[in-house]
Amino acid sequence: MRMYDLILKKRNGGKLTKEEIDFFVKGVTEKTIELYHVSALMMAIYFKGMDEEETLNLTLAMADSGEKMDLKLIDGIKVDKHSTGGVGDKTTLAVIPIVAACGVKVAKMSGRGLGHTGGTIDKLESIRGFQTSVEPDKFFDIVNTHGLCVAGQSMNLAPADKELYALRDVTATVDNLSLIASSIMSKKLASGSDCILLDVKVGSGAFMKTYEDAEKLASAMVKIGNGAGRKTVAVITDMDKPLGNTVGNSIEVIEAIDTLKGKGPEDFTLLTKALSAELLRLAGIENPEEKVEEVISNGKALRKLADMVKAQGGDENYIYDTSLFEKAEFTREIKAEKDGYISHMNAETVGIASAKLGAGREKKGDSIDFTAGIKLLKKTGEKVASGETIAEMYTSDKAKFAEAERTFLSAVEYSSEEAKKFPLIYGKIK
Amino acid sequence: MRMYDLILKKRNGGKLTKEEIDFFVKGVTEKTIELYHVSALMMAIYFKGMDEEETLNLTLAMADSGEKMDLKLIDGIKVDKHSTGGVGDKTTLAVIPIVAACGVKVAKMSGRGLGHTGGTIDKLESIRGFQTSVEPDKFFDIVNTHGLCVAGQSMNLAPADKELYALRDVTATVDNLSLIASSIMSKKLASGSDCILLDVKVGSGAFMKTYEDAEKLASAMVKIGNGAGRKTVAVITDMDKPLGNTVGNSIEVIEAIDTLKGKGPEDFTLLTKALSAELLRLAGIENPEEKVEEVISNGKALRKLADMVKAQGGDENYIYDTSLFEKAEFTREIKAEKDGYISHMNAETVGIASAKLGAGREKKGDSIDFTAGIKLLKKTGEKVASGETIAEMYTSDKAKFAEAERTFLSAVEYSSEEAKKFPLIYGKIK
Repeated sequence: MRMYDLILKKRNGGKLTKEEIDFFVKGVTEKTIELYHVSALMMAIYFKGMDEEETLNLTLAMADSGEKMDLKLIDGIKVDKHSTGGVGDKTTLAVIPIVAACGVKVAKMSGRGLGHTGGTIDKLESIRGFQTSVEPDKFFDIVNTHGLCVAGQSMNLAPADKELYALRDVTATVDNLSLIASSIMSKKLASGSDCILLDVKVGSGAFMKTYEDAEKLASAMVKIGNGAGRKTVAVITDMDKPLGNTVGNSIEVIEAIDTLKGKGPEDFTLLTKALSAELLRLAGIENPEEKVEEVISNGKALRKLADMVKAQGGDENYIYDTSLFEKAEFTREIKAEKDGYISHMNAETVGIASAKLGAGREKKGDSIDFTAGIKLLKKTGEKVASGETIAEMYTSDKAKFAEAERTFLSAVEYSSEEAKKFPLIYGKIK
Repeated sequence: MRMYDLILKKRNGGKLTKEEIDFFVKGVTEKTIELYHVSALMMAIYFKGMDEEETLNLTLAMADSGEKMDLKLIDGIKVDKHSTGGVGDKTTLAVIPIVAACGVKVAKMSGRGLGHTGGTIDKLESIRGFQTSVEPDKFFDIVNTHGLCVAGQSMNLAPADKELYALRDVTATVDNLSLIASSIMSKKLASGSDCILLDVKVGSGAFMKTYEDAEKLASAMVKIGNGAGRKTVAVITDMDKPLGNTVGNSIEVIEAIDTLKGKGPEDFTLLTKALSAELLRLAGIENPEEKVEEVISNGKALRKLADMVKAQGGDENYIYDTSLFEKAEFTREIKAEKDGYISHMNAETVGIASAKLGAGREKKGDSIDFTAGIKLLKKTGEKVASGETIAEMYTSDKAKFAEAERTFLSAVEYSSEEAKKFPLIYGKIK
């Protein structure tokens, strides 16, 4: 088999066989294929696409390219949740304690933040002592005992995807539906859960800017998941404005805790409950919406989070008393520049402003300021008066305010008329 | 400037600026650009194309990437001729003595044969003593004294094209019009002639299989040539059947000599005269058709070839007495398999059959058998009887007959009805 023939076939709109895809993925993993062959094939796929079968075969080959989590050591049904990434998206922090409190296990590998989006692992590390690097044995033990664990990716999951993504990233071949779907799903499949819930974000703060694109991606991923024998559902949700009222690290954890206490912001509470119910439904739990309400109101979900924090070396008191979280040294109030309604608040730009305050990183390995971030007092659709405080910025480095404020203000648009409201949850693909 | 941005721009159908193309070509020449960037860009260009200006800029940048022939040392107007390659295409051998005999200088760099097409340099080496490796000083001297010289490519002309072509060849990005046109023209521009005549072949033995494709390529190359300030004309000519009656090396030289003696085959004689007249017209010579007839009938053209052969170390007696050429040790007659008309004779397949007899090479550096080849006694459109000899095969290695004959016979199709005749010269693009 020769890469030339695979490239020529795909360039001419042909379909790659399972054997050809396996040959390619093996070559990428073992680095026996020239990168100029790989990038030419990726560009041909960008233009000619892959059908469902090719996409599934690519995903399976990448999922099989390295280590795989074997969750057999964990009893019961294991569920996983993946968000395509957004600004203020602390959903995992609230959803998994709820699900675990309802008796469904969550063994979750999570990532760190990069660019304008945050990462669950970073957020959790704002709790004193919390360890995200967990050995496999301990990981299984925590899930079996408490029903949930969130760890950083220590295993060599889907290394072919890692290689391929790094090359696509520098050759302008990232944004192809099949390649995005197979990249995400290869890691999910290697992570071993029985059920997968995909939260596909759409809007100015998401990778997918239009509903149509989000729906196509959701549909492609659901087909892969089900094709690989996992119960998979995708929910398409809004990321045109930041989710909840906080963007950062510790302030997002506090907001998730508040939500588990029944006093979170309306949009984030709604999404948390909906996603939790979907996960329970996937796991075969009856009356999932009622169960979710129950474990929030009786405090079981909050205790699950505290149990997990403690099991992973963190100070559980942070969960019961959020005043223990370290506070930012400096605060600046951001004022509305006009009278009227906030007609749009570009979520990606808000994420960038937060990163500029120290909450995010430009490149892998950069350190972050857990206390930095932005609290939104007014969001899209709300009426404001010129000079009214619409947000608060936090940082440990006062010098960062000026540029972050300019960035933030560039994200906000005003209108004299009330803006049309968009739903938080657009639809479900199964 | 970053390759990523060039790739993204082209992928999205954008236009590369001169600065971007210069950056790219410089990087390719100096090998400072990763090949995975180059192949991704080539594939994006394959799908999105380049406009006239981009194609001209790419050609100019590649022409400027290495050494350039400076023909200022040669007096008068210098013309160059390029064929896109065909089977039995010995046109250069007959055309340049005619042109030189009419007072127009030809300083020609030529290539060797590869695959199913032959090369002028190989053919000339079948003349005892003929040297195709000529130092620049001597090259200029021969052209100034005799008006013509044909040498192998010793200078480092258009190295960027060489690099780029080698990569395109292994990544399925060869067949894009702009890339083909700029590859050919970059070498022509670096070769320094004032006027360029392009013989674009079309048909089963040519790179371009359809008239439409040939016309597009011709048009693209003419625009480049004129855009670069060279008087450029393209003629689109038939390569659906082999040109003339011979395919090989020494037998093609003999056919070219016969043509200069006024006794060549009809099709080859017609093309030789037409291309010669075009070259003279480009150089501003009046009544070019008459001049061509004159130098053939008065023997001046033949003497020019003899002068060149002598100047390049060859035995000029070969030109006056072609019985001096070494003969093949073995001959086999090929018989018609059916009664009827030869409705098609695939020129590429005939070229492959000739190569299998030893006349061609599979890969660079292979040695060739100058005496090997095929003489066609019957060609497309002619009536034959089953068992009648339609061709003769020559070789120094008898063992090669069997496979070469099978290949040759697979090229021939018969019909009970007279086949439609196609023109030899389709049109001219200027």
